[in-house]
Amino acid sequence: MSKNKQEFVAHITSREEDFSKWYTDIILKTDLVDYSPVRGSMVIKPYGYGIWENIQRELDNRFKATGHKNAYFPLFIPESLLQKEVDHVEGFAPEVAWVTHGGGEELTERLAVRPTSETIICSMYAKWIQSYRDLPVLYNQWCNVVRWEKTTRPFLRTLEFLWQEGHTAHATEEEAQEETMKMLNVYREFSENVLAIPMVAGKKTEKEKFAGAMSTYTIEALMQDGQALQAGTSHNLGQHFAKVFDIGYLDRDGQRKHVWQTSWGVTTRLIGAIIMVHGDERGLVLPPKVAPIQVIMVPIAFHKEGVLDKAEAIYEGLKAAGFRVELDDRDTQSAGWKFNEWEMKGVPIRLEIGPRDVEKNQVVLVRRDNHEKTFVPVEELTDTIHNMLEEIHKGLYDKALTMREENTHVAHDMDEFKDIVETRKGFIKAMWCGDVGCEDRIKDEFSLTARCIPFEQEKLADHCICCGEEAKHMVYFARAY
Amino acid sequence: MSKNKQEFVAHITSREEDFSKWYTDIILKTDLVDYSPVRGSMVIKPYGYGIWENIQRELDNRFKATGHKNAYFPLFIPESLLQKEVDHVEGFAPEVAWVTHGGGEELTERLAVRPTSETIICSMYAKWIQSYRDLPVLYNQWCNVVRWEKTTRPFLRTLEFLWQEGHTAHATEEEAQEETMKMLNVYREFSENVLAIPMVAGKKTEKEKFAGAMSTYTIEALMQDGQALQAGTSHNLGQHFAKVFDIGYLDRDGQRKHVWQTSWGVTTRLIGAIIMVHGDERGLVLPPKVAPIQVIMVPIAFHKEGVLDKAEAIYEGLKAAGFRVELDDRDTQSAGWKFNEWEMKGVPIRLEIGPRDVEKNQVVLVRRDNHEKTFVPVEELTDTIHNMLEEIHKGLYDKALTMREENTHVAHDMDEFKDIVETRKGFIKAMWCGDVGCEDRIKDEFSLTARCIPFEQEKLADHCICCGEEAKHMVYFARAY
Repeated sequence: MSKNKQEFVAHITSREEDFSKWYTDIILKTDLVDYSPVRGSMVIKPYGYGIWENIQRELDNRFKATGHKNAYFPLFIPESLLQKEVDHVEGFAPEVAWVTHGGGEELTERLAVRPTSETIICSMYAKWIQSYRDLPVLYNQWCNVVRWEKTTRPFLRTLEFLWQEGHTAHATEEEAQEETMKMLNVYREFSENVLAIPMVAGKKTEKEKFAGAMSTYTIEALMQDGQALQAGTSHNLGQHFAKVFDIGYLDRDGQRKHVWQTSWGVTTRLIGAIIMVHGDERGLVLPPKVAPIQVIMVPIAFHKEGVLDKAEAIYEGLKAAGFRVELDDRDTQSAGWKFNEWEMKGVPIRLEIGPRDVEKNQVVLVRRDNHEKTFVPVEELTDTIHNMLEEIHKGLYDKALTMREENTHVAHDMDEFKDIVETRKGFIKAMWCGDVGCEDRIKDEFSLTARCIPFEQEKLADHCICCGEEAKHMVYFARAY
Repeated sequence: MSKNKQEFVAHITSREEDFSKWYTDIILKTDLVDYSPVRGSMVIKPYGYGIWENIQRELDNRFKATGHKNAYFPLFIPESLLQKEVDHVEGFAPEVAWVTHGGGEELTERLAVRPTSETIICSMYAKWIQSYRDLPVLYNQWCNVVRWEKTTRPFLRTLEFLWQEGHTAHATEEEAQEETMKMLNVYREFSENVLAIPMVAGKKTEKEKFAGAMSTYTIEALMQDGQALQAGTSHNLGQHFAKVFDIGYLDRDGQRKHVWQTSWGVTTRLIGAIIMVHGDERGLVLPPKVAPIQVIMVPIAFHKEGVLDKAEAIYEGLKAAGFRVELDDRDTQSAGWKFNEWEMKGVPIRLEIGPRDVEKNQVVLVRRDNHEKTFVPVEELTDTIHNMLEEIHKGLYDKALTMREENTHVAHDMDEFKDIVETRKGFIKAMWCGDVGCEDRIKDEFSLTARCIPFEQEKLADHCICCGEEAKHMVYFARAY
């Protein structure tokens, strides 16, 4: 390792030393975000926004393939609308930003800046849905939302964030439940196949469910510091909103019935998950399917004849083949400096080409994830890169799965639970009676929350680790972002 | 025309009778938008949002091809930031929505819901730009903005709307001017080649320029009722913002200099322009490149053997060929009803297929713009549709250009000007001295504004039509949305 490299990489705090500082170093030094003059609001810089654009495209394709259409609903929600569903307003009112003045005048009714859009959307669905022929309604919107969080951290918890929110209405309870699960599975499949992040999927406890939902389903990921991160949720809203907003339809049998609803969303916090699952001591490690740059080309000694010409020809070829590729031909920085920068920025593949490579009609490929170096004949380049990106994806997923498995522990009773909390990090699987009292006690004593009741249940013991009563579910507990 | 058709079409008010009512009928009956419970805010329904998605994709490709990257800046702007540039705050303060409470507490400083993002972006550029190596900065964002308008109309003027705003910083005045013109040309080219709307391009007068800009350039379109619509603007901000936000860079010569900036934007009001330029008595007429559905397939007598199978095979083939196609196989509506509905919704091509067509291995294509009917062998379908969409685009553009030319008048003096205002509609070209007094007088007397000083100047007369002093420019005047 050259002196230059050491100095450069030294800017990033080690994960072991201070995970939180490591995270902050990465997001700022790799130009993903910056702090803004608005408390708790972030600026998403082009490199970070590029990841979000790729997330959007991949998810949007999946939403459309499952029959959903995009729409756009107002940013402002009149206070009276927000208050209609009791649990919902209790959950969200403390976090609302209120507009009280507009056009130089005080408003007669305060407007909430949307923390989520169930209420405004329901007020429209009540108007649009009349007959069973109007169902199902399968809409989604991509937008910004505001929640007045006390402690914020870029991507993970910010005053304003970007997300998508799906809102659907169905004729029957079964259809709504099917939709809820279908979209959770879209999220899980997307997380695994696009973000290379393995997920634990399951149901939220009553305590942790969405304010106003009948039940909430979630996908939970484990970060390298052993904390969990809720990556996406899908809510079966039952008829809670349909009844208070009176969203009814005339069924085939001539009866007027209330619809059954779902809502589901993922946010820009997925970018935080990518960083904390895949990042390493050198910086970001981006999954190829969302990396804004998949291949960074660094020409070596490119003042020498033929190097830059060849590099440009290869660049055009890779671009035409559909790769997201960039050619770093800055003459203000050394090749070594560039290697370090693009490593820090997590670009999956570095392509080096120098005078000797031009002679041999080859290039050098270096993988970001395992630093493997390969000499590749130019004529095989497209296929090799295609396969290498697939392998990197698979490698990242497998590594993340191993990390999660090594940090998932089983507690058969409270003693084991305490011991794990004190000596280990990660998920703890334990049996639970289903009572909120036990859930509260674990939260109060250990700051661990029930992440979910996973679909894949195991019978670890007969009794709740907390109260000793009969156990109903196995639960994943963890500290969480 | 069948009785059914007449009844159906009768729902839309005639353009001649009441253009404003015609517009409202179309946007509501074709499911583009709906009114919301928030005064002046619209809900963009999937059919309307689908047009916006196509506009976004076409523009975003052009922005990226010209070297721009997307980013995201906060929705909220602290009052102190908004107030930094004097002209800017004067222009926007009256229209601002203010957040005064968040998280259950009154804020110490009010937050503006962004009416535009120059100030928040400049506060970041001041931090990011240090050296000439950091320039140019070429960023864009897609987002929502809020302007507290008194009178609102869906798409044209709403409290909240969607837009993109480009914000760039450059080392020299020349580069900033070049960028300003480049992006105006992107807008003009896009309007003509995608929206099929001819534009008058030119410079805004001092009175009409953007609050805080050095100069504003615009593209102006003429609607069928003879009113103009500002479709996109590109601002050369000079160093107005750079100086108050102190955005400086160290130049090659060792001197610290302020940057030169531009900003440019188009909004969801483009959808209003599409409606008012191309729509007809039967409803919407959508330009093929932004139509959410380009080909609507209506099978005839599809209970008969083979029809639906054949229709589905054709549907899959057209989809695979990249067309936006839908198959209307609802059995709840007659074919005639469907013809009318899809005509009203402005789908460029209707494809009919019935038992006799299946026998002959052909389909019937009907153009929305001129109602021409063509029998096409199935094996020629892809090519025919491809060409027909091109022809429709060209037909729409030519028709719009003719409409504009027929409604563009020349006034050599004030008598002619008055006569035209009283008896005609549309653009009036007239000479102007450059004095705001004359501009004000024309606005006060006739409610006409100077739309722009077009790049293509003509010398119609020697003197200003208003004051008789020496004329400096030919100006396009019009009533405007």
